[in-house]
Amino acid sequence: MTDAYAKAGVDIRAGNETVARYREVLPERRDPRVLEGIGGFGGCFALRGMRDAVLVASTDGVGTKLLVAAQLKKYDTIGHDLVNHCVNDILCLNAQPLFFLDYLAVGKLEPAIAASIVGSIGAACADHDMALLGGETAEMPGLYQPQHFDLAGTIVGGVERDDLTDIARVVAGDIVIGLPSNGFQTNGYSLVRATLSPERWGEPFGAGTIGDALLAIHPSYMRAVRAAQAAGVSIHGMAHITGGGLTDNLPRALPAGVVARLYPEKWHVPPIIDLVVREAHLDRETAFHTFNMGIGFCTIVAARDTQAALAAMPGALAIGEIEPLGPCAPRVIFA
Amino acid sequence: MTDAYAKAGVDIRAGNETVARYREVLPERRDPRVLEGIGGFGGCFALRGMRDAVLVASTDGVGTKLLVAAQLKKYDTIGHDLVNHCVNDILCLNAQPLFFLDYLAVGKLEPAIAASIVGSIGAACADHDMALLGGETAEMPGLYQPQHFDLAGTIVGGVERDDLTDIARVVAGDIVIGLPSNGFQTNGYSLVRATLSPERWGEPFGAGTIGDALLAIHPSYMRAVRAAQAAGVSIHGMAHITGGGLTDNLPRALPAGVVARLYPEKWHVPPIIDLVVREAHLDRETAFHTFNMGIGFCTIVAARDTQAALAAMPGALAIGEIEPLGPCAPRVIFA
Repeated sequence: MTDAYAKAGVDIRAGNETVARYREVLPERRDPRVLEGIGGFGGCFALRGMRDAVLVASTDGVGTKLLVAAQLKKYDTIGHDLVNHCVNDILCLNAQPLFFLDYLAVGKLEPAIAASIVGSIGAACADHDMALLGGETAEMPGLYQPQHFDLAGTIVGGVERDDLTDIARVVAGDIVIGLPSNGFQTNGYSLVRATLSPERWGEPFGAGTIGDALLAIHPSYMRAVRAAQAAGVSIHGMAHITGGGLTDNLPRALPAGVVARLYPEKWHVPPIIDLVVREAHLDRETAFHTFNMGIGFCTIVAARDTQAALAAMPGALAIGEIEPLGPCAPRVIFA
Repeated sequence: MTDAYAKAGVDIRAGNETVARYREVLPERRDPRVLEGIGGFGGCFALRGMRDAVLVASTDGVGTKLLVAAQLKKYDTIGHDLVNHCVNDILCLNAQPLFFLDYLAVGKLEPAIAASIVGSIGAACADHDMALLGGETAEMPGLYQPQHFDLAGTIVGGVERDDLTDIARVVAGDIVIGLPSNGFQTNGYSLVRATLSPERWGEPFGAGTIGDALLAIHPSYMRAVRAAQAAGVSIHGMAHITGGGLTDNLPRALPAGVVARLYPEKWHVPPIIDLVVREAHLDRETAFHTFNMGIGFCTIVAARDTQAALAAMPGALAIGEIEPLGPCAPRVIFA
């Protein structure tokens, strides 16, 4: 079989080696929720201890950030980007991560690279007490260039129905608390790459290079949010600031009848974003509609909870407030 | 924003049009399990009526069958391939489909094509009373050639813990019931494409063309299995015959200490598989280790249930039996 398939560009031996390396980089974590030894056609996860479970699921990729990673041959952080992005998405609904499945597609399977990527996914899952329940690694000659790959993942979390975020609780007078981003996170990379060509990625920038700044790991905001809740803060709404920026994402946490007024002078734009905005000649409206501009996640809380929220979440800033909807006003106003 | 991003190869207008078309091709199905209107950062599925739920999940792609679909510009069946493949995988654990999420990645977003693909996913989900709970459509210039795309999906099903397939019940004397495949299903296409070049896909073959035979939809075996169970058949083990053929997949349904002896003269190899086996000069062992060779799914039942199983499942054939493991025997013996 190896010969016929190898001539067709599919390397069974590389496949077997990859599986062996996955076993190395994914240390066995005894997770009593994961049922083992039942054939392997699907991962089995026992859902225990929930009264009225709502499952919250999301599939996402890391976009063309992976072309930056591939170019710089840095494969051990992109899995954190992928997992953290997904964790933040379902966090907006107040869901706790349960399990994750990855999809890695390559033109030519390089076991060491695949293991580095999948190992970083496993590490990021462990960071969130989440099972890496399954996944697929596909070698598809003819679809991907040899050094290229694509990466996507699916997260499934759970939340008691009573605890599901209810954005109807967001009212005028509430405060928007922003949590800082550290760069582009996982959005806007096609524009970033068109603006900063790969020849420049080795240039010194801040404490490292432009390439380092481009590959800064998309943070998970789960610990910060859970810390605020543990401190008694009642969070009315949450928004993960991804493609479309604050302009498109913050309204997803707003009920009809209110708008968010933000004060951009309250926070700093990360230098790497500032560089691309300047070199791409983006006006302010476009920039805020494309990049996160320094705010990676928003929580909306009652004014009386502001100090407790700021104290509980490292780096948190009060960046705006909720107002009644005026006539013809946009949903997000940059003051 | 449109301008800057369009220059970078990302077409926001095409993105918006695609979303509008998705709304058209995914008719609103009021599914009381899906909770709507809570921000859209994740799909919310209320899990009700289960006592001791085990969630069974799998991520898979359709491999390079999609290069055949892209070449032949046939986009409305590949979603059925994807969904049915995933349904069959979790069916092996006896799980019922709950929800699905898709990942579609393209080089250049063509709204009509994307809608055709995602519409076929939605239709296949509806066939299984499964919610299409979410998904991601990513335009990634530089990663995919303009006419190329990749497609993967994640299924989540549920089963009561007591009803989970327990392959320990498979014992010597049980009968292997095979359900017919209609071609390559979704496996082996890199070798198929290396053997049958695209110039030949228009050639007449059977009732259609070679291309038609290559794109025959991967069947779902769920209805057949449920019909057998409804007829009182107790299924001891199940195997979905995918990459690696009967040789690799049937052992996943076998406990230690037994082997399966199969009688290949009991069933027909689909003509399109026969053609590729001959033209690629595959020996029998290689062929059975690469392609499904005409058996898409296996159920293993007690001998006394054989007639009931054959009567309940259309096209089903008794193709072999379970035997005690001999010294040094392979797990699957082709008699």
